[in-house]
Amino acid sequence: MMATIKVHGSPFSTATQRVLVSLYEKELEFEFVNVNMGAGEHKKEPFISLNPFGQVPALEDGDLKLFESRAITQYITHENPDKGTQLLCTGKQMAIVSVWMEVEAQKFEPAASKLNWEVFYKPFFGLTTDPAAVEENEAKLANVLDVYESRLAQSKYLAGDSFTLADLHHLPNLHLLLVTQSKN
Amino acid sequence: MMATIKVHGSPFSTATQRVLVSLYEKELEFEFVNVNMGAGEHKKEPFISLNPFGQVPALEDGDLKLFESRAITQYITHENPDKGTQLLCTGKQMAIVSVWMEVEAQKFEPAASKLNWEVFYKPFFGLTTDPAAVEENEAKLANVLDVYESRLAQSKYLAGDSFTLADLHHLPNLHLLLVTQSKN
Ligand SMILES: N[C@@H](CCC(=O)N[C@@H](CS)C(=O)NCC(=O)O)C(=O)O
Ligand SMILES: N[C@@H](CCC(=O)N[C@@H](CS)C(=O)NCC(=O)O)C(=O)O
Repeated sequence: MMATIKVHGSPFSTATQRVLVSLYEKELEFEFVNVNMGAGEHKKEPFISLNPFGQVPALEDGDLKLFESRAITQYITHENPDKGTQLLCTGKQMAIVSVWMEVEAQKFEPAASKLNWEVFYKPFFGLTTDPAAVEENEAKLANVLDVYESRLAQSKYLAGDSFTLADLHHLPNLHLLLVTQSKN
Repeated sequence: MMATIKVHGSPFSTATQRVLVSLYEKELEFEFVNVNMGAGEHKKEPFISLNPFGQVPALEDGDLKLFESRAITQYITHENPDKGTQLLCTGKQMAIVSVWMEVEAQKFEPAASKLNWEVFYKPFFGLTTDPAAVEENEAKLANVLDVYESRLAQSKYLAGDSFTLADLHHLPNLHLLLVTQSKN
């Protein structure tokens, strides 16, 4: 019997959700270990031994301990090519998947996560939204989404004709953007 | 005969340097196409067709067009396993390389590049360094380097016993940090 994968994280964390979505897509069983962030558990042992930066998520698979959501999703998909959705490609097509994974991490996430912090999480925690930060990040996100619009006029998904890890990595922040947009 | 790889970029750009270092390590021949950033060539055709975000570097390998430096270095190393330095690992060890590549991109680079902008590029362009930004990013970088110090007490390189792409990705910003530090 294989050791059960353990995901340590918080259901409210978009980085944790990124890992959970990849496990669902690959139809893998796992154990979820809730890290109580309100109580600061992510900054203390035992969690800090899983991620020295004290951020969720982290993954354990037997002896292997990983952190950083995108490293974890890549591990899960590389190790399980025959399960669930095929989220990767091979050869030159994989290079295109890498480009759009980098775009998500370097361009989409910084703007989307700052916007979601202002518009979704701050009101949730009783903090006051900063309209200047909203405006700045809406403008940055609009630039990124313009590029996506041209890209998706040429190909069905970001990296080509099929849904890949590059698309999947966007889902948690995209979900929150859609939730908050629909309120306006 | 294989098509020659073309790297479009600027020798002053750390992201371009990241790609160049990987090509040197893999002992690959390539053609360097200088993008005159002072003249804004990175925001116009033909470059903007290589990277819709208008940032260097970009790579052409026959019909394949890539951008984002870390997607390019991964393509180069995956396509050339038998040339030059072995910069990747397989299986579970590759997952550890991924973790530290993500740490470079998510933790090291943001602090190091803002610091290098203030301390190296601004004086170079005749702009005034902002001491508050220096202090803020020195503090952030110190936190990251604390984690690296513990990590490198356990393993020779970030991802284990050998030099990998995770270490290589740090070199351009690390080089500038060392240059500017030695001036103080
Ligand atoms: N780049 C990391 C980011 C992780 C991250 O930002 N986690 C947040 C929750 S979404 C967190 O732990 N925040 C608490 C903190 O930074 O102290 C990843 O993708 O895993
Ligand atoms: N995440 C990108 C960053 C590229 C980047 O920031 N390039 C800079 C030079 S190091 C640039 O083109 N700056 C001009 C601009 O942003 O307009 C990569 O790794 O390739």
